[in-house]
Amino acid sequence: MRKQAKTAITPTRAKDYPVWYQQVVKASDMAENSPVRGCMVIKPWGYALWENIRDVLDNMFKETGVKNAYFPLFIPKRFLEKEAEHVEGFAKECAVVTHHRLEGGEDGGLVPAGPLEEPLVVRPTSETIIGESFSRWVSSYRDLPLLINQWCNVVRWELRPRIFLRTSEFLWQEGHTAHVGPNEAMERTLQMLDIYERLAESYLAVPVIKGEKTVSERFPGAVNTYTVEAMVQDRKALQAGTSHFLGQNFARASEIKYQSTQEKEEYAWTTSWGVSTRLIGAIIMTHGDDDGLVLPPKIASSHIVLMPIIKKPEHRNAVMDYTHALARELREITYHQRKIIVEIDCRETGGRGWDWIKKGIPIRVEIGPRDIAQDSVFLGRRDRGPSEKESIPKGQFVKTIVSILDEIQKNLFDRALRLREENTKQIDSKDDFYAFFTPENSERPEIHGGFALSHWCGNQACEEKIKEDLSVTIRCIPLDAEKETGTCIACGGKSPMRVIFAKAY
Amino acid sequence: MRKQAKTAITPTRAKDYPVWYQQVVKASDMAENSPVRGCMVIKPWGYALWENIRDVLDNMFKETGVKNAYFPLFIPKRFLEKEAEHVEGFAKECAVVTHHRLEGGEDGGLVPAGPLEEPLVVRPTSETIIGESFSRWVSSYRDLPLLINQWCNVVRWELRPRIFLRTSEFLWQEGHTAHVGPNEAMERTLQMLDIYERLAESYLAVPVIKGEKTVSERFPGAVNTYTVEAMVQDRKALQAGTSHFLGQNFARASEIKYQSTQEKEEYAWTTSWGVSTRLIGAIIMTHGDDDGLVLPPKIASSHIVLMPIIKKPEHRNAVMDYTHALARELREITYHQRKIIVEIDCRETGGRGWDWIKKGIPIRVEIGPRDIAQDSVFLGRRDRGPSEKESIPKGQFVKTIVSILDEIQKNLFDRALRLREENTKQIDSKDDFYAFFTPENSERPEIHGGFALSHWCGNQACEEKIKEDLSVTIRCIPLDAEKETGTCIACGGKSPMRVIFAKAY
Repeated sequence: MRKQAKTAITPTRAKDYPVWYQQVVKASDMAENSPVRGCMVIKPWGYALWENIRDVLDNMFKETGVKNAYFPLFIPKRFLEKEAEHVEGFAKECAVVTHHRLEGGEDGGLVPAGPLEEPLVVRPTSETIIGESFSRWVSSYRDLPLLINQWCNVVRWELRPRIFLRTSEFLWQEGHTAHVGPNEAMERTLQMLDIYERLAESYLAVPVIKGEKTVSERFPGAVNTYTVEAMVQDRKALQAGTSHFLGQNFARASEIKYQSTQEKEEYAWTTSWGVSTRLIGAIIMTHGDDDGLVLPPKIASSHIVLMPIIKKPEHRNAVMDYTHALARELREITYHQRKIIVEIDCRETGGRGWDWIKKGIPIRVEIGPRDIAQDSVFLGRRDRGPSEKESIPKGQFVKTIVSILDEIQKNLFDRALRLREENTKQIDSKDDFYAFFTPENSERPEIHGGFALSHWCGNQACEEKIKEDLSVTIRCIPLDAEKETGTCIACGGKSPMRVIFAKAY
Repeated sequence: MRKQAKTAITPTRAKDYPVWYQQVVKASDMAENSPVRGCMVIKPWGYALWENIRDVLDNMFKETGVKNAYFPLFIPKRFLEKEAEHVEGFAKECAVVTHHRLEGGEDGGLVPAGPLEEPLVVRPTSETIIGESFSRWVSSYRDLPLLINQWCNVVRWELRPRIFLRTSEFLWQEGHTAHVGPNEAMERTLQMLDIYERLAESYLAVPVIKGEKTVSERFPGAVNTYTVEAMVQDRKALQAGTSHFLGQNFARASEIKYQSTQEKEEYAWTTSWGVSTRLIGAIIMTHGDDDGLVLPPKIASSHIVLMPIIKKPEHRNAVMDYTHALARELREITYHQRKIIVEIDCRETGGRGWDWIKKGIPIRVEIGPRDIAQDSVFLGRRDRGPSEKESIPKGQFVKTIVSILDEIQKNLFDRALRLREENTKQIDSKDDFYAFFTPENSERPEIHGGFALSHWCGNQACEEKIKEDLSVTIRCIPLDAEKETGTCIACGGKSPMRVIFAKAY
């Protein structure tokens, strides 16, 4: 075994994964908990990541004809109540506005005043309020498809919040579309799932499995829910995005009707789909290591930090000139539709290199008088160990920077994929299944958690039993699952295919 | 007098300006009122405009070192109460969250449940919640300046909402900065005002006057408030953006302290500044005409619509090929950092040309077999009358499109500036002043409203008297006002300079 090196993050992932996660968020300066219970403050380094994700997705959406719009933050209670399953699903986590001003109270402090006739719910999701607009925008088949997206904040009251993964307020996009028939709506549902897969795999370097949710894991009110599921480094699943085929449920609730080509009045078929700031949690948990955050170059907040080394005052001008000239050269280069973003860190503290490692910047460059004499730079890459640095000619560095970044991007993806592959097992015996998910109690400790590809009869009772026993859920029925007869891991009944079982965030 | 032509918007501006405004919003398909009192739905044509404004501003902010972040939607009541003037200013329009779930009530419907220990206010502005973060982020002079901006929604309960201009929920950006001293903070306050002026004049084609607000018009809690004020077509003023020098008021309230170079503990000096979706109202009211919206090309939702004319089926292929080829050519062209956005409208309705006029698209192009035969296009410009169209060679059109758009942009600005200049008067007599603002009662009906540049003694009582009598307020003390002794328009007392009086939105 390799000698244990000191790490920038304490505890390590192996030691205490949940605390490691919190420490990475803190050390990378991405976000912090706010004094408002369950809400977070997203700091510039974290927000830049979200802006980059937004820009990538927004372009992909617009290429498929989707347009952005904005709908009210508040939903009248009666709107939410229109779809029975929907309101049932969200009632327990609604922030409710009941008053519209503050007034002096008896003890001198301010108290809520101006009670509203009808309480307003802060949107947990916007099917019902957008549905109301759609019902007015659609009257003929000619008005369809309607392809709308909004970028906004939503609120779902969380009793056990966890930064980025589960917060009472979060940022997201929610797409809402209406169509003339089920086929077109289903096609759109899966098209958007493909976009989420592309975002996750090609930009976030997070491999995902596309699949359908079981009935019990569906979005409240949906006919089918599809998901992209990632495996993070403690081998739990993390749902990275969902796309819902809503059938005519919400069209009926909101009266979204159109006159068909046969001049019959029909309810539209709708979809909705979203990803949120949770994706930042997925990035941290997929790529972070014991030295902190590791950012995939394609969506990194910045790409490169230049650190001039000035030990004698007489070197200052030469080193700074060289640094600024290099920054200018790099900033002219386009990397996947964005100009390369370069930071210059002139602090004279010894810890600055580690600061940038913890922040996960893909490339660190040190520039001192010796480097300048050789016209070279001293390069560190975040996909390698902190001390694995190398000197390379500056010209070569500039010329190959795009491929270096691409290589880092690819290495992150490959590493994540390897982790998932190594920790995904076909499991056919109930004993093995229970051992897989409780390695601490097992006589076979070499079997540990991850994704279990196991048979399931389709019975909700079996799903619940496993959830109760092991806190393991069916993450999805993979879209590319092959038909394969087997016996249910829980009841031994006949099963048509394998599904993915895992513990999940 | 010219024969009155039929207009696309009824009523005209002259007939009923407020209703004209509503009709333009509707006819251009930018936005609509929502069933949630005071809230609006921003439709794609309006939202694209906001995205363009956001991108322009965001770049300008970032060039000055500002970074984006995101802070909680909810503000604990006690935070808001920390600054006495601030809470007093906003208490009357706060949406208050008092519960965090809905539960089955006695009558079967859902009622608010899970009362919060402390009510939360939906942010009307974020000085107090951001101040709380700043107090933790700042400890030394080395941490300053802190330059932060957020793009978000805010809520200020409106009893008399008006779409875009005054809505209960609106979108905006709010910048918040902290500095080591008053000079640096004041410099930043005015720097951001300059950016708002540049946005308004160079992008929205809306001329503005920079000035300082009087005490009574200040942001609650600010030491000084600066504004950019526009004149719209009914000659009223519209405040287009504000920048506040907050002194140490909010630093004291939020405990934003730093250790100075002399190792003394000091309160920071802060600023805040914002513009909102109200700017869309300013665009409509500045440029719109009796045929609808007129969009400044630099921030237009789209630049050009191509309308193929196909009267015989055998022409279809040729016309569509020509249209698509032209669209491809145009979409390659960059106009002020954006690729030109081209719409193709293949509808066969006669009304499509008018639809695009009402939506304010800068350029309309008709393409029929005759145009193709001549390799020319038939061009309509939104800065000209709807029937003033001309045929020009296609090659020339493509080659000059950027200068045509620039010319439209300039024409809109010049026209707006002319309106303001024609309706700004130096008024020195009280009678003239009263007549200027009540032309309907005046014996000199040729004098009508607008901006009155008049003397004011600095006394709040005079300001109030004029507000009571005429609903006229001091819009600002222009930054470039020359010292000029005179007598106060209200009391006849001594005055050091002229200020701008106007009715306002």
